[in-house]
Amino acid sequence: MDNAADRLIARIRSVGNAVVVGIDPRPSQFPAEIRGRFPETRAGVAESMRAFSEAILDVVAGLVPAVKFQSAFFEEFGPEGVAALHQAAAGARRRGLFVIIDGKRNDIGSTAEAYARGYLGRPPVSEGEGPSWDADALTINPYLGGDGIAPFASVASERGKGLFVLVRTSNPSAGDFQDLVADGKPIYRHVADRLVEWAGPLRGESGYSALGAVVGATYPEQLAELRAAMPGILFLIPGYGAQGGRATDIAAGCDAQGLGAVVNCSRGIIFAFERPDLRARFGDDWRAAVSFAVREMVDDLAANTPMGRLQA
Amino acid sequence: MDNAADRLIARIRSVGNAVVVGIDPRPSQFPAEIRGRFPETRAGVAESMRAFSEAILDVVAGLVPAVKFQSAFFEEFGPEGVAALHQAAAGARRRGLFVIIDGKRNDIGSTAEAYARGYLGRPPVSEGEGPSWDADALTINPYLGGDGIAPFASVASERGKGLFVLVRTSNPSAGDFQDLVADGKPIYRHVADRLVEWAGPLRGESGYSALGAVVGATYPEQLAELRAAMPGILFLIPGYGAQGGRATDIAAGCDAQGLGAVVNCSRGIIFAFERPDLRARFGDDWRAAVSFAVREMVDDLAANTPMGRLQA
Repeated sequence: MDNAADRLIARIRSVGNAVVVGIDPRPSQFPAEIRGRFPETRAGVAESMRAFSEAILDVVAGLVPAVKFQSAFFEEFGPEGVAALHQAAAGARRRGLFVIIDGKRNDIGSTAEAYARGYLGRPPVSEGEGPSWDADALTINPYLGGDGIAPFASVASERGKGLFVLVRTSNPSAGDFQDLVADGKPIYRHVADRLVEWAGPLRGESGYSALGAVVGATYPEQLAELRAAMPGILFLIPGYGAQGGRATDIAAGCDAQGLGAVVNCSRGIIFAFERPDLRARFGDDWRAAVSFAVREMVDDLAANTPMGRLQA
Repeated sequence: MDNAADRLIARIRSVGNAVVVGIDPRPSQFPAEIRGRFPETRAGVAESMRAFSEAILDVVAGLVPAVKFQSAFFEEFGPEGVAALHQAAAGARRRGLFVIIDGKRNDIGSTAEAYARGYLGRPPVSEGEGPSWDADALTINPYLGGDGIAPFASVASERGKGLFVLVRTSNPSAGDFQDLVADGKPIYRHVADRLVEWAGPLRGESGYSALGAVVGATYPEQLAELRAAMPGILFLIPGYGAQGGRATDIAAGCDAQGLGAVVNCSRGIIFAFERPDLRARFGDDWRAAVSFAVREMVDDLAANTPMGRLQA
């Protein structure tokens, strides 16, 4: 069973960038072409989310190594929405993309195991049945402590899958609890330090572990601090673009080879066609606007971070 | 729109106890009668979870005020499992139970809103369509801070729904981060104190807020400390029975009227038929064993906590 960090890094090297396209399907922002095709029922909206996701995947496959699906937007529409996520995730895998499900799941013991088997492993069903979700990686929340992480790490290790644990998030009030200082260091550093321990057994040949961290782009000093404190930990960096994170802020998240981090952008890419400049340039060809926004982000990161070395 | 805390307390008064039956469907433990009826495919197991859940609901409706569905066990089996959860939750509502979905969801801004609209509110679909999940309450995780709570609280307030925020959990390593001391108090107290602020606007006529807290039964000193620190906050107390929490430990979670807390038991009730003493007593009538276990827990709480006053 190969290692998820190695697999992600191989894809990064293959396409020459570390961009993650975040698929956060907000139906009200879908192009008219897609919105108009489906009724405004729960099932209809779910179908439109699947169709929009597949259209995005067609554009970004080959351009980026990975996509991240935000589970909330699918769950909002009930079981029909969840079925659409399932189909879209399968579509991403078929297109060769590394698939992250952003579910921020958390629980303990056998309940955490159920999440882990569901999203990363295989449930106890008959031989002929495949896995349930078969994501390459899942985001998880550390508030429950070590026995909320171990069951996920165990399944990830067995199945060659990955995890990204929330450490320092990109939202304005992330500091409410994450920045409180105990024993001389903030809570997020306590989480980071424990994560380094837990990540050791999942280290791959690349030197990076399949147990990674979510670290926001909006607090560059903390990103630099955590990069130094967490060698061998892959960062999933949200907050680029819409949330205000700039490439120069992200530079500190990379190692000298331009590895060590993947950078997520959601709205800024999948709804790029709303930008007046891209609307003027591409008209109704919304896919061209999305593709342009991906290339623009790749170029921005290459010019302003060590990620430029990935293109050599 | 009525208040979820008032609604839950009305049900507690009506049945005379504050027991929450936790529906954590582990298929390997289902009675042979249910296991044997379905194939071991993902869809078959999902159907068996629905059937088992409905059978449990038939036994416990009328005996207890509320049920709590553990989402992980359903999600494990993919979209089919999630559809089974949807059907089971609808079945619980039809039977007059207060429905808690234990999803420990967490995110920020518009993503948190999507979870909240999905589980507690109404997604943007055409008039004829109902809500997606229509739970009475959802469990959420506070690691992301205030802007991870506000969107949930806002939807809960608008829709007369409830939330239970993880404060101090019942697992052995809960203290890894929750017990770290910052500014003279542990992190869980920081969460508790903020929760008291956030809960104010959701207070009902009962004096309790629709924004409640998850506080484990396995740390009785902390339960007493938090009861004193969080007046007007309903506690959802897990850990009774299988996890080692006893009624005498739980007493400190109640107010003088026996209100202020609901106590969850999952395995100890839904798999009560595995107990040798109940097997000897009820034979293959597994439903009778489940019913007996509920009454036993009700009596235990009535005898050893102020909840006895609910039966007067």
